[in-house]
Amino acid sequence: MTRLGEFDFIRQLLAPLSRNAPGAFNLTDDAAALTVTHGCELVLTKDALVAGVHFFADDPPGLIARKALRVNLSDLAAKGAKPVGFLMALALPHAVNDAWLAAFAGGLGEDVETYACPLLGGDTVSTPGPLTISITALGEVKTGHMIHRHGALSGDILCVSGTIGDAALGLDIANGSFAPSSDEHKQFLLNRYRLPQPRLALGQALANRDSACLDISDGLCADVGHICEQSQVGAVIEVSQLPLSEAARAAVHAHPNVIERILTGGDDYELALAIPPANLAATQEYGRKAGVAITPIGRFVEGAGVIVLDGTGAALTLSSQGYRHR
Amino acid sequence: MTRLGEFDFIRQLLAPLSRNAPGAFNLTDDAAALTVTHGCELVLTKDALVAGVHFFADDPPGLIARKALRVNLSDLAAKGAKPVGFLMALALPHAVNDAWLAAFAGGLGEDVETYACPLLGGDTVSTPGPLTISITALGEVKTGHMIHRHGALSGDILCVSGTIGDAALGLDIANGSFAPSSDEHKQFLLNRYRLPQPRLALGQALANRDSACLDISDGLCADVGHICEQSQVGAVIEVSQLPLSEAARAAVHAHPNVIERILTGGDDYELALAIPPANLAATQEYGRKAGVAITPIGRFVEGAGVIVLDGTGAALTLSSQGYRHR
Repeated sequence: MTRLGEFDFIRQLLAPLSRNAPGAFNLTDDAAALTVTHGCELVLTKDALVAGVHFFADDPPGLIARKALRVNLSDLAAKGAKPVGFLMALALPHAVNDAWLAAFAGGLGEDVETYACPLLGGDTVSTPGPLTISITALGEVKTGHMIHRHGALSGDILCVSGTIGDAALGLDIANGSFAPSSDEHKQFLLNRYRLPQPRLALGQALANRDSACLDISDGLCADVGHICEQSQVGAVIEVSQLPLSEAARAAVHAHPNVIERILTGGDDYELALAIPPANLAATQEYGRKAGVAITPIGRFVEGAGVIVLDGTGAALTLSSQGYRHR
Repeated sequence: MTRLGEFDFIRQLLAPLSRNAPGAFNLTDDAAALTVTHGCELVLTKDALVAGVHFFADDPPGLIARKALRVNLSDLAAKGAKPVGFLMALALPHAVNDAWLAAFAGGLGEDVETYACPLLGGDTVSTPGPLTISITALGEVKTGHMIHRHGALSGDILCVSGTIGDAALGLDIANGSFAPSSDEHKQFLLNRYRLPQPRLALGQALANRDSACLDISDGLCADVGHICEQSQVGAVIEVSQLPLSEAARAAVHAHPNVIERILTGGDDYELALAIPPANLAATQEYGRKAGVAITPIGRFVEGAGVIVLDGTGAALTLSSQGYRHR
């Protein structure tokens, strides 16, 4: 098994991903330079992913790369920021070969183009452990326009973008604990797990509006709980209002207790929003323009914590407030 | 063995390290905000460290933390930048306990204060593999003043800060392949390996001068080679001019072949500089003000590659152009 050295990997496969960033110096220097647009502040986020914890070591390398970048872009989306670039540290196990590196860089390159988010720099090291990817993503937002987790008020409507729970079901498929009856559903759900859709256009449209926002990574209930905690309010989620994909709907139909997985599973990377009722129509219009549905699923209330109501208005008891990474 | 959850670790031990950065939001949000000083550009660098590769898993946790931050600050120093903050991803093995976490955060907190470099954000995940730390450090430099690896000219003087080779000997002590006769030397060399001294004041004084610069992490010969490659020149290093600590000098006296280790060992985190002869005295004065010696050790010449001359003017043959991380 051949393996490019660190310098050749950078020069041949990574440097092309920096070509739209003059301050990356073609990855030949110790550090990158970045000029922030006048009137903007920088938004910084950093997520790490470990093989066997956040993805499967034998997932397609291009999808691993894209997911690693996209979970970071999802954080920028939740802040209303526009991506400007990223840095990446890769800890590579010895078994990784050139074909793997090429596929990884190829997938990453696709998303560098898609999101106009060049590679600015980073580090490549060897590890006796699992593949570990750490990405720092940088975005810009007009100064003071960043959206926060705090700021939800009692009376605000709780909305989510897209559909909820698909990625958790995709993970269950990947680890063999769930098998949908339809192959089409299987592929759809797996894809939702492997390739999140950062809601950047929506987030940017929401910047500087009366919203609180985060991206759903730990699970719907846990993440709505984070908004509540930071805003010192409570929330009510109506199960009957949850936007479900056709595949998730079929799964709930076949196994009604799947609804708990949908409420608490992670990796959705959809946005959860707190919106004053007067702004709902405008927010849904931003969603329409961004190509993603905005669905009201409940409301923020005085108090603390998250209550989940079933179709009859009875509170559901959940075994967990959400997935926490092992 | 008790172990704080991710949220408690962040709240109790890491959030205090962000207190001088209002844009870190006390580590309660998905991302940090940073306003770059008017007239400055941002300098970004990212280094990852893996237990068993870049440090020993049983090194004191506070020193592991400080080294992880300092190797990044050393990159900022080489660019002439002033630190403004950092993000950190920690992949923690299951064996790490609360005492370890507290000592790690304690050491990190010392350097957060020393270098006025607050924690802006990051991520904490579990790993079945070795402890892995990835830090993205951010600095500022006046726009256009950043120092680069390229820019060395034939005729420039090659200088280094501080003393060279101590850290490589410290590593040899740590892994049992070298034993100095004096305990004082042993502690000095070990400390030079474990706790680099980022030359920030010196780097900032050199910004916008006619210099090329990098920090010596891969080894003196390899890193001077990087300046040569990026500047399209060659270099000559005079072994007799190398600034050696008393401990390193004693090691060379006892084992003359140690000089090869000094020339090629990594982890010095001193600066290597290319300086026009007319600027030498001023540069040495910057060093004096910054509390670190600047020693001429050779010159840049037309051509390519690094030639090492012994005391008689004969070229030394080295078995390696420098240490590359396993």
